Amino acid sequence: MFDEIHEECGVFGAYHVKDAASITYYGLHTLQHRGQEASGIASEKDGKIRVSKGKGLTIDVFTKEKLEQLGGNNAIGHVRYSTAGGQENANIQPIVSRGRRGETAIVHNGQIVNEKELRVELEDAGCIFQGTSDSEIVLHMIQMEEGTLLEKVMKTASRLVGAFSILVMSDDEIIAVRDQKGLRPLSYTKMQDGYVIGSETCAFEVLGLYSHTDVLPGQAVQFKDGIVRSFFYEENVSSNMCAMEYIYFARPDSVIENINVHNFRKETGRLLARKDDVQADLVIGVPDSSLSAAIGYAEESGIPFETGLVKNRFVGRTFIQPTQSQRDRGVRMKLSAIEQVVSGKSVVMIDDSIVRGTTSRRIVRLLKDAGAAQVHVRIASPIITSPCFYGVDTSTKEELIGARMNCDEICSYIEADSLKFMEIEELKAAADGNGLCTACFDGKYCTDLFSYAKVLEA
Amino acid sequence: MFDEIHEECGVFGAYHVKDAASITYYGLHTLQHRGQEASGIASEKDGKIRVSKGKGLTIDVFTKEKLEQLGGNNAIGHVRYSTAGGQENANIQPIVSRGRRGETAIVHNGQIVNEKELRVELEDAGCIFQGTSDSEIVLHMIQMEEGTLLEKVMKTASRLVGAFSILVMSDDEIIAVRDQKGLRPLSYTKMQDGYVIGSETCAFEVLGLYSHTDVLPGQAVQFKDGIVRSFFYEENVSSNMCAMEYIYFARPDSVIENINVHNFRKETGRLLARKDDVQADLVIGVPDSSLSAAIGYAEESGIPFETGLVKNRFVGRTFIQPTQSQRDRGVRMKLSAIEQVVSGKSVVMIDDSIVRGTTSRRIVRLLKDAGAAQVHVRIASPIITSPCFYGVDTSTKEELIGARMNCDEICSYIEADSLKFMEIEELKAAADGNGLCTACFDGKYCTDLFSYAKVLEA
Amino acid sequence: MFDEIHEECGVFGAYHVKDAASITYYGLHTLQHRGQEASGIASEKDGKIRVSKGKGLTIDVFTKEKLEQLGGNNAIGHVRYSTAGGQENANIQPIVSRGRRGETAIVHNGQIVNEKELRVELEDAGCIFQGTSDSEIVLHMIQMEEGTLLEKVMKTASRLVGAFSILVMSDDEIIAVRDQKGLRPLSYTKMQDGYVIGSETCAFEVLGLYSHTDVLPGQAVQFKDGIVRSFFYEENVSSNMCAMEYIYFARPDSVIENINVHNFRKETGRLLARKDDVQADLVIGVPDSSLSAAIGYAEESGIPFETGLVKNRFVGRTFIQPTQSQRDRGVRMKLSAIEQVVSGKSVVMIDDSIVRGTTSRRIVRLLKDAGAAQVHVRIASPIITSPCFYGVDTSTKEELIGARMNCDEICSYIEADSLKFMEIEELKAAADGNGLCTACFDGKYCTDLFSYAKVLEA
Amino acid sequence: MFDEIHEECGVFGAYHVKDAASITYYGLHTLQHRGQEASGIASEKDGKIRVSKGKGLTIDVFTKEKLEQLGGNNAIGHVRYSTAGGQENANIQPIVSRGRRGETAIVHNGQIVNEKELRVELEDAGCIFQGTSDSEIVLHMIQMEEGTLLEKVMKTASRLVGAFSILVMSDDEIIAVRDQKGLRPLSYTKMQDGYVIGSETCAFEVLGLYSHTDVLPGQAVQFKDGIVRSFFYEENVSSNMCAMEYIYFARPDSVIENINVHNFRKETGRLLARKDDVQADLVIGVPDSSLSAAIGYAEESGIPFETGLVKNRFVGRTFIQPTQSQRDRGVRMKLSAIEQVVSGKSVVMIDDSIVRGTTSRRIVRLLKDAGAAQVHVRIASPIITSPCFYGVDTSTKEELIGARMNCDEICSYIEADSLKFMEIEELKAAADGNGLCTACFDGKYCTDLFSYAKVLEA
Repeated sequence: MFDEIHEECGVFGAYHVKDAASITYYGLHTLQHRGQEASGIASEKDGKIRVSKGKGLTIDVFTKEKLEQLGGNNAIGHVRYSTAGGQENANIQPIVSRGRRGETAIVHNGQIVNEKELRVELEDAGCIFQGTSDSEIVLHMIQMEEGTLLEKVMKTASRLVGAFSILVMSDDEIIAVRDQKGLRPLSYTKMQDGYVIGSETCAFEVLGLYSHTDVLPGQAVQFKDGIVRSFFYEENVSSNMCAMEYIYFARPDSVIENINVHNFRKETGRLLARKDDVQADLVIGVPDSSLSAAIGYAEESGIPFETGLVKNRFVGRTFIQPTQSQRDRGVRMKLSAIEQVVSGKSVVMIDDSIVRGTTSRRIVRLLKDAGAAQVHVRIASPIITSPCFYGVDTSTKEELIGARMNCDEICSYIEADSLKFMEIEELKAAADGNGLCTACFDGKYCTDLFSYAKVLEA
Repeated sequence: MFDEIHEECGVFGAYHVKDAASITYYGLHTLQHRGQEASGIASEKDGKIRVSKGKGLTIDVFTKEKLEQLGGNNAIGHVRYSTAGGQENANIQPIVSRGRRGETAIVHNGQIVNEKELRVELEDAGCIFQGTSDSEIVLHMIQMEEGTLLEKVMKTASRLVGAFSILVMSDDEIIAVRDQKGLRPLSYTKMQDGYVIGSETCAFEVLGLYSHTDVLPGQAVQFKDGIVRSFFYEENVSSNMCAMEYIYFARPDSVIENINVHNFRKETGRLLARKDDVQADLVIGVPDSSLSAAIGYAEESGIPFETGLVKNRFVGRTFIQPTQSQRDRGVRMKLSAIEQVVSGKSVVMIDDSIVRGTTSRRIVRLLKDAGAAQVHVRIASPIITSPCFYGVDTSTKEELIGARMNCDEICSYIEADSLKFMEIEELKAAADGNGLCTACFDGKYCTDLFSYAKVLEA
Repeated sequence: MFDEIHEECGVFGAYHVKDAASITYYGLHTLQHRGQEASGIASEKDGKIRVSKGKGLTIDVFTKEKLEQLGGNNAIGHVRYSTAGGQENANIQPIVSRGRRGETAIVHNGQIVNEKELRVELEDAGCIFQGTSDSEIVLHMIQMEEGTLLEKVMKTASRLVGAFSILVMSDDEIIAVRDQKGLRPLSYTKMQDGYVIGSETCAFEVLGLYSHTDVLPGQAVQFKDGIVRSFFYEENVSSNMCAMEYIYFARPDSVIENINVHNFRKETGRLLARKDDVQADLVIGVPDSSLSAAIGYAEESGIPFETGLVKNRFVGRTFIQPTQSQRDRGVRMKLSAIEQVVSGKSVVMIDDSIVRGTTSRRIVRLLKDAGAAQVHVRIASPIITSPCFYGVDTSTKEELIGARMNCDEICSYIEADSLKFMEIEELKAAADGNGLCTACFDGKYCTDLFSYAKVLEA
Repeated sequence: MFDEIHEECGVFGAYHVKDAASITYYGLHTLQHRGQEASGIASEKDGKIRVSKGKGLTIDVFTKEKLEQLGGNNAIGHVRYSTAGGQENANIQPIVSRGRRGETAIVHNGQIVNEKELRVELEDAGCIFQGTSDSEIVLHMIQMEEGTLLEKVMKTASRLVGAFSILVMSDDEIIAVRDQKGLRPLSYTKMQDGYVIGSETCAFEVLGLYSHTDVLPGQAVQFKDGIVRSFFYEENVSSNMCAMEYIYFARPDSVIENINVHNFRKETGRLLARKDDVQADLVIGVPDSSLSAAIGYAEESGIPFETGLVKNRFVGRTFIQPTQSQRDRGVRMKLSAIEQVVSGKSVVMIDDSIVRGTTSRRIVRLLKDAGAAQVHVRIASPIITSPCFYGVDTSTKEELIGARMNCDEICSYIEADSLKFMEIEELKAAADGNGLCTACFDGKYCTDLFSYAKVLEA
């Protein structure tokens, strides 16, 4: 799938931790794979919230001076994949509200599906919006509620529908809250005398912290007075972790609901092999996200694992596109085939998913140009047939090749010698009983969709 | 005087004018003397408002590409002097609100004195504030009102107390509104098939437009449907133009309430000379703002006008400060005396005002170091005794030398051979009957001060 | 005149002075009017030469960190007006040569007319050139010579023809050298335990140093062992200071060969008035360079001096040009007329020179658009008829309006009501006997021109 | 070894190819792993050489505008790892010489060991050097020679001793030349009507070109008049390809002297396994350079290949270092262990080399912190005992752990449970008879070392 799917973001926070802004910087850097467009940190210092944010990678946005200025014992941060648009700057998180009763900062990973309805209600009550992000809506809603910050956040969360993992910071506390369906991950762990909170557990491991606790669906976790307390703002919860977190987004060293991502992916590879009888010389994975599945497939099938594709490590967002007459050069700048490995060979190529099919076709061509005799594509997930409204940017329904073609037609389109996908039940088996959201595969959305329902009808 | 006083900003707008963003760019560039910290333009194009803004001079913030992207037939812009602080970016204007019923952009010159009271009221109603600027408050208030945009702006304006010259832009109109006391200037004139609106008339002249109409105190002027309509949102108005606009801020080629600024300043010089009997060899002005007054003094007194001080044209904000042991070098980097002009001479040095006295003392020393036999300082305005709450950043009361010392003491402090100020009545005479706000000289504020009244008591 | 003439550069050096790089920074900042395109400083620290340079103003190129890294007791620096071209970076000075026998840095103001001949000779001897600047040639020549650095510099200087004021720095000395005709200024003065050297004396005054010594034509001045020694590398010298230094380039507070620049300009104004009988209401100068002459004209003629033109202080190099259909807007962005001063009046407009005539025409139009009844242009220098090969970028002969038209024709072209220039003899009188190079007025070049002679024949 | 060894650079050229600068941009981007500090391109357009270069990655240094300005049919480029130092800019390649007889640009990969001797000779002949790069020396030498460019380049090459792969471009030709020992790779291939030349063949494959010819040791290849001609400037040649090119520098999809780099590395893994009898649960490689060897080891040993370490893909040069008290965080920001893979397991960890030992120790600790029961380190190359003078920046002899300790001592230092290296003979076997330079392992340098010989004695 390689560069065709994008998640909205990753969040990280540090409570009651020395150099909280620096710790958050390390955390965001480790979560950078979840968003490379913009990065921001808000820290609390002497009762005031300072914020520093900008476009680009965490390591480019922050300098030593900026981190020192942020300082603080509490901090929250955000990395973000942006869906473009002219007014981007107003959407870079954290967003901070500065009022008489104190300052509040917020970061948010996910997508609220009743966002339009809430926005109308807030506008009618006199609110103005400077950007188009969900976070601004949530901040307004919190402000509208009565009570302690925890009460306000919980009342607000109970009115939000969709996917959200949110951190809210005031001058003396951080509150982490996760949606009722548990669509996006969020965990925390003890560090020094305080806590760190983040979208993925890989961010804890780089700090030398090897255990963690998940924020549960429908739960709000309050870090205050030096301790942690957890509350359910909603009783009617379920577990519907986004399957794409396992398949594509998360880092292989992260653990999501007690399953290591690398092991999940290896298992999908094994399951693919178990029902396969293709005769081939070697198994290769599309780097980086499909390598784990390829190792699993190789182990199960006994076909040797090989490195058939090499990824250019220096691809950035500013890459100058080749002209129209050099159409296939784009993917070549990112991926190369090793001719000496694949030439004359029958190759099983493992990829994590197919979205539009154009990239898959280019990779198959790349392998054939390098002399591969046969390319058997095996996808470590089911066919994507439906758009996502919970924070994954897969394209519109029309662009999804799986919404228009069946497996044979896709195989023909991508010019592969054979093509197989996983079944949804197999995917669930890899998750070992954990609940998954598989809406992009089966169109079964776990929440009401509000105005987005129209998109499906069209 | 000379780098010690700062005004908050300048505004400019273009309605129904081809390349409105470019015209606004030229306008802001001409108003750059009113603020050099940040610059921004919002333009309306195809019913959508785009905004581009950043820290720095107008010519540095905007590129050709940015102006082309802005495009549009309507645009408003802002140049700003910032009072520092960590969260500056959220305060750069224009500020845009994006809602279901349309988008609204605002720019604002001045200071609202009941800002704190309005903010409390809005927060209680559930509004959040991302920055600390008055503009965000005004945008919220407009959103809260009912009716057409004009009605909403007029209702809002009638609740604001203080100094304000505001431009509000929606997708098909621009509304200009000025405070009830007329503290800050705002004028407009016809251009092509449309109109341009700006803080000073010098911005019209660079476009080749030599006539103009003032927005009157308490008036809202609506540019819509290709025409202009004006309305009073308030009947109880008066004319209290900030005296500092004439004395220091405005460009000499601007006309404020029918008086050319250069001529006003020349007249202050003449009035100073008329009551003076000092024996001197030459008259010099502190560049640039005091040159007009110096010419007037020279004409009236018969003492020759000379160029005794030269200003470095390349001083910027990034100038690296000399170390503590090189204390006087700062002013020398900006101003030099011409030894061959002042050496051995008795000099009348005209300056526009004295704020803290430290710069005056350094300039007197500069002249004496260059050999001036005597330096008689004449100030083309009265003694500043009181802080301003209407948008001029003169320092706190404690820092105002005129609040602590009388004329003789100041003379001694700045090491001048003699020192004279104007009387307030003389200043009013120079304004030829136009109403002035002279609160910084006499402490008579033309509005209620709300929470700022406490500052005075302290 | 006004943005039409450009000099190549200014140089500054500090020998045996604490914080030499910082002192050079202040010096260059004061010489910034001589070149705004690029700025650089080389300093000697612990026997090694460090260099920092870049495009832009001195205050933008250098940060506090860079100055601290430079440090040192000796330093030389350069500000430069660039004649564009793709390979600019290789030409930014200082240029440093790093060799086995030590490091040498050089800065250079002026133009070598036998540059092509020297370049051929050096290339034949195996030298390569990375840029196109004269400085690189001079560095090569020094390297080719035998003896001490002083001997090498003096032998090199004796072979250079043209205009040059050069500073050469090694690890323990600075050598200042000036051409045989004294075409470009260069002076030095004592500071602390050492010396500072610079293109103009205004750079000494900002350091509080009010006396100075000129490097004489044909002289090399060596700063070494804590003391200064001077030598003549050439006996056959003359004094031919570039007249344009007095007329346009130098700051009014500088002293060139014992004449203050402001006073020189005032005298040109007086001389213009003495032979004039125009009836007019007021005298104005084109800011900034013509204000001194205007004051002199006003004093002599008795016609009042006025401020009729205002200059925008924020014009930079990045100003976005108006489109072709807005042709006159360019000059309006830089200069404005004060309508209330000039309207209905007969105006004497003093300018320092006319090069191509286009700017003059635009300024006359500006005044007439603002209502001036008559505009009598008086130029405080003779007609420019010939190109300069000594470092002034006046344009080619074809572009010089004075090479194609006589005074009446020029008057008609610029749409003035009358026009007068100075005579060359009057200019010399203003210089009070100092020798001047007036080649741009009379075509009498004070050196052989080598390959440039062909330009004149064409 | 991971981040401890650095090569100096990569070169790429395009002759007689449409959009030569853009093609060179793609080529350099693919060679980016050879140097990330600076990037530059020189192109020939209308007989003139233009150059654009700067610090940073190729994708950051060049914009679309810059590439269009470069244009041209011929171009050469360079990516560079910099050895720091204040005067870096003067060393960024290409370096261009602009002379009367034409312009010449040069790029260079390698290190000339008689550089000091040549520099002295050139200085004595009057040459000056602005930087410290070998390229400047080579340009001077070419200029000093007589004859055609080809003759000059060949005469120059025959006097150079050391490692060099050089491209020289004039207005109508490109000459590629490689040292007599063939220490650094250089190949070319046909593209469209012209040719592309580059340090590694992976740069050809991204252009869809799957065959290539090597420039041979002692050979100069001239691209001129639309065709290619090759010449030997030296008869006494040998084949001593730098072993580190295979082991660490080159991309796995490159072919060096007919051996694919990935396959070479796999073979080193197999050879390590063949003589090993360790009992372990899994084999992991240090990403990215050691993964191929790990796959080979796994295949040969039958121990399963696993992904035990994850590399952060977003590590850049601007990463802010943790404070001293967080010593091990540096490596954790770049590498993470997957706890669920390694916990409780006996792990064979394959790395490509050990330089100082500090990184190896940190990675072993990382694995043990993640629960690994045993870590058996296997190095896919011999012990490094000697510094390199041919362009590899391995550190000084004192810093090389292999120069101070034997295998057991190193094992103890890095806290591994066991440690094995390859034998030099095994390495040669992996190269399948190709000649290798193994000086860093056995101290047998294939050229005279000139002044560098002293480094060894010390």
